[in-house]
Amino acid sequence: MEIYIILFHDFETLDAFGPVEILGRIGEYHLHFVSYAGGTVISRQGIPVITEKLDSVNGGGVVLIPGGMGTRTLVTDKAFLKALVPVVDMSAYCLTVCTGSVLLAQTGRLDGRKATSNKKAFSWVKTTRTAVLWQGKARWVVDGKFYTSSGISAGIDMTLGFICDVYGRKKAVEIAQSIEYNWQENKNCDPFAADNK
Amino acid sequence: MEIYIILFHDFETLDAFGPVEILGRIGEYHLHFVSYAGGTVISRQGIPVITEKLDSVNGGGVVLIPGGMGTRTLVTDKAFLKALVPVVDMSAYCLTVCTGSVLLAQTGRLDGRKATSNKKAFSWVKTTRTAVLWQGKARWVVDGKFYTSSGISAGIDMTLGFICDVYGRKKAVEIAQSIEYNWQENKNCDPFAADNK
Repeated sequence: MEIYIILFHDFETLDAFGPVEILGRIGEYHLHFVSYAGGTVISRQGIPVITEKLDSVNGGGVVLIPGGMGTRTLVTDKAFLKALVPVVDMSAYCLTVCTGSVLLAQTGRLDGRKATSNKKAFSWVKTTRTAVLWQGKARWVVDGKFYTSSGISAGIDMTLGFICDVYGRKKAVEIAQSIEYNWQENKNCDPFAADNK
Repeated sequence: MEIYIILFHDFETLDAFGPVEILGRIGEYHLHFVSYAGGTVISRQGIPVITEKLDSVNGGGVVLIPGGMGTRTLVTDKAFLKALVPVVDMSAYCLTVCTGSVLLAQTGRLDGRKATSNKKAFSWVKTTRTAVLWQGKARWVVDGKFYTSSGISAGIDMTLGFICDVYGRKKAVEIAQSIEYNWQENKNCDPFAADNK
């Protein structure tokens, strides 16, 4: 299993590295950290991460797109979005955390599908692509091969939900236990939906 | 406020980057990622992170030591441990996650103090420094300037607890809300203590 984490300047740290902690425990896997141009990418919290180029991604794997302030720029970056389309299309599964769903939405692949995003940014999110069926109350949403989560920490719960769906609940619970994590297993329970403005 | 995250080969991703997400939201802060020799350090889950040298750490800040498989080697690495002593001594606060407490314990600064660690590794942890008052049931432990947490995810709860103690509960709740995180606020509640063998 090949797993590709798509990074960019000002990505939100936990959006990417919460799920990475989970995905890194599946067993047979290979994690790749990629960005449009490759090289060093710095998270919103200042972590300098070395990445491969986005065009190195192969098909049939899992793609994860985190959110963060960097999405505000990338949402109108035509070169990035054009390069993102084939990466999304050839993936077996595509997961987004927080405002990462805004980038996925720009590929058009969420049109007519249900998806969610960060609740504090939701009013902005909805305007970025009106053809998406944005869900204001959901810890995470599954529609076909697309998994989209609410803000930041929700990505951890969603990734365990993804493991549950693909590898079985026993594996998901085993991973949650191994990282001493209180998994919120119900994707429809969203304690932060009230922040949706 | 200067914050130093001490990294090493095979550090556990979420041990370091869960707390980084929280610490990066304090406001006035500067996060530094350091390792003994500096340069690129790779997490257990494969993230290549660029670091400064450990001897670049200044006093009066917050030091965070993650755990992970890399601690099994570092626990007997005399050069690293010798360099760690002044870093710990001149810190205002020293936080450890998971088996990071084993490295802190080797400096002798936890002798006679209460501390905790990963519950699945607890039998090993206790043998590494018997002068420490290891606590088998605790989400995290505070003793003086030292904060030590249980395994991996517990570091997120502990760091919010640290924010609560130093900056007030309002700030901790605000940060937890902003990352859509269900903070487990009670440091004595440890659902994973049963794994302590």
